[in-house]
Amino acid sequence: MSSSRPVLFLVAVPEDADGDADAGCVQVDPEAPHLSVMDLGVTRGDGIFETISVCDGRAQALEPHLARLAHSAHLLDLPEPDLELYRRAVLAAIEAHDDVPELSVKTVMTRGVEGTGISTGWVYAAEAADSTRARTEGIRVVTLDRGLKHDVAQTSPWLLQGAKTLSYAVNRAALREAERREADDVIFTSSDGYVLEGPTSNVILRRGDTLATPRTDQGILAGTTQASVFDFAASIGMRTEYAVIPVAELASADALWLVSSVRQAAPINTLDGVERAVDAELSARLTAYLLGRRE
Amino acid sequence: MSSSRPVLFLVAVPEDADGDADAGCVQVDPEAPHLSVMDLGVTRGDGIFETISVCDGRAQALEPHLARLAHSAHLLDLPEPDLELYRRAVLAAIEAHDDVPELSVKTVMTRGVEGTGISTGWVYAAEAADSTRARTEGIRVVTLDRGLKHDVAQTSPWLLQGAKTLSYAVNRAALREAERREADDVIFTSSDGYVLEGPTSNVILRRGDTLATPRTDQGILAGTTQASVFDFAASIGMRTEYAVIPVAELASADALWLVSSVRQAAPINTLDGVERAVDAELSARLTAYLLGRRE
Repeated sequence: MSSSRPVLFLVAVPEDADGDADAGCVQVDPEAPHLSVMDLGVTRGDGIFETISVCDGRAQALEPHLARLAHSAHLLDLPEPDLELYRRAVLAAIEAHDDVPELSVKTVMTRGVEGTGISTGWVYAAEAADSTRARTEGIRVVTLDRGLKHDVAQTSPWLLQGAKTLSYAVNRAALREAERREADDVIFTSSDGYVLEGPTSNVILRRGDTLATPRTDQGILAGTTQASVFDFAASIGMRTEYAVIPVAELASADALWLVSSVRQAAPINTLDGVERAVDAELSARLTAYLLGRRE
Repeated sequence: MSSSRPVLFLVAVPEDADGDADAGCVQVDPEAPHLSVMDLGVTRGDGIFETISVCDGRAQALEPHLARLAHSAHLLDLPEPDLELYRRAVLAAIEAHDDVPELSVKTVMTRGVEGTGISTGWVYAAEAADSTRARTEGIRVVTLDRGLKHDVAQTSPWLLQGAKTLSYAVNRAALREAERREADDVIFTSSDGYVLEGPTSNVILRRGDTLATPRTDQGILAGTTQASVFDFAASIGMRTEYAVIPVAELASADALWLVSSVRQAAPINTLDGVERAVDAELSARLTAYLLGRRE
């Protein structure tokens, strides 16, 4: 990886603000401890996050990420995050970090220390791992049942499907299961047989000149990178659609990708042990477009 | 609540142990920050915990709690916890805390700071809230669908059902949903109609002279307090059974409880808005037995 030093800003709504514009956004030593063992972010995984990709110093899809942070807060009945403060912290962290080709900026807000009612927030910027190989050669993916029906976000909102929470132990366990199956990543499927999303990505299928992705009312995250991919597809005359996609359609698709903020568009070269051709040309164009985004 | 001061011990496997028996178990200021923002316990809810009740200075069901911590570690592919170290930290925390009638000791182990491969651990002791009212008058409970089938722990182990993880955002959301429905707590049900568990408790039904609880192979936690309740029931000549329990059997049971470490046995006085009689006599005997446990 890299030897450049990570950058950490704490984002805190001060209990008695004194009017100092920077009171709520302070750079601190990333190696030092900053969290209480009673923070509900760690004792209950009770918080939300976004991971923002930065390419050549430009934060990509910053506003969609901030909007999604606010949406996740709403789903968890958290206080409304001060998006101006988070925006400022993200930009300050990018500014404070060494110049590197690709940076990953994690933006976190927790419910705070139990009993205080004051949320905890921070922004952590670190050089991103090199994703060139995943973007060009592709990745091996397995499908895993998430156990929930595809309409569960409507019927059981307390399951928090569609919120980007800190409670990611299941997503991590799914990635370990993928590793046991000699794969790199996962596509979750619903218990009633529909394609959902990856643990940290969205699924995109190409069928002829159409790109399709699962509809977000199926308890999946609205992808910021997926939205950019659709923007690009529309700009080159492809059709795009949000759909309810039976699992069998993965095998019959012309090409498949997992798209996410830091790795961007990773073509799938193996699905459940079966090798597939990657669409090298479209993958290269997607990568060029995604890395070149200026907002 | 109380003004007695919480006690915090950090449990750490030192990178270069020097033979000092207490090297891995250090008392620290509970008000100070001790965790990195890059600890996977907070960034991914990737860790496990136990909450141990202490009555009149005696840790209750300590060995079952430690055994369950090790079981959860196994389910999450975490390193095996050093149970002797955690046991020592729990006892030291109890010893260091002011004498109070009831103490709650939270024992946590995370996957540690990303990239280090070294787990983070701590033991936090604080005076427990007064549960007298819940134990005598009872609690209002609603059933909520957890969205998963009752056999999902067998079919999809990556969903971590049956592990006590830090990824509890859904459990917290379920409790907020209960509050919206003017209830105090929740019984999760499976998507195929069986009784599972509470967000932080086990369900017990009395049918005549039999106590029943859902079988643990349904992706639910093996309850330490539930086990004690069954020990007591057997000692007074009641029958006990682990069963697959259709949701409809809740309404027809003679009495219902949610049992957990700190609140102990809380009789259910209202289920989904319908008032129920509580079994005051058995509840009182259970409370006396549970609070009197000496191990």
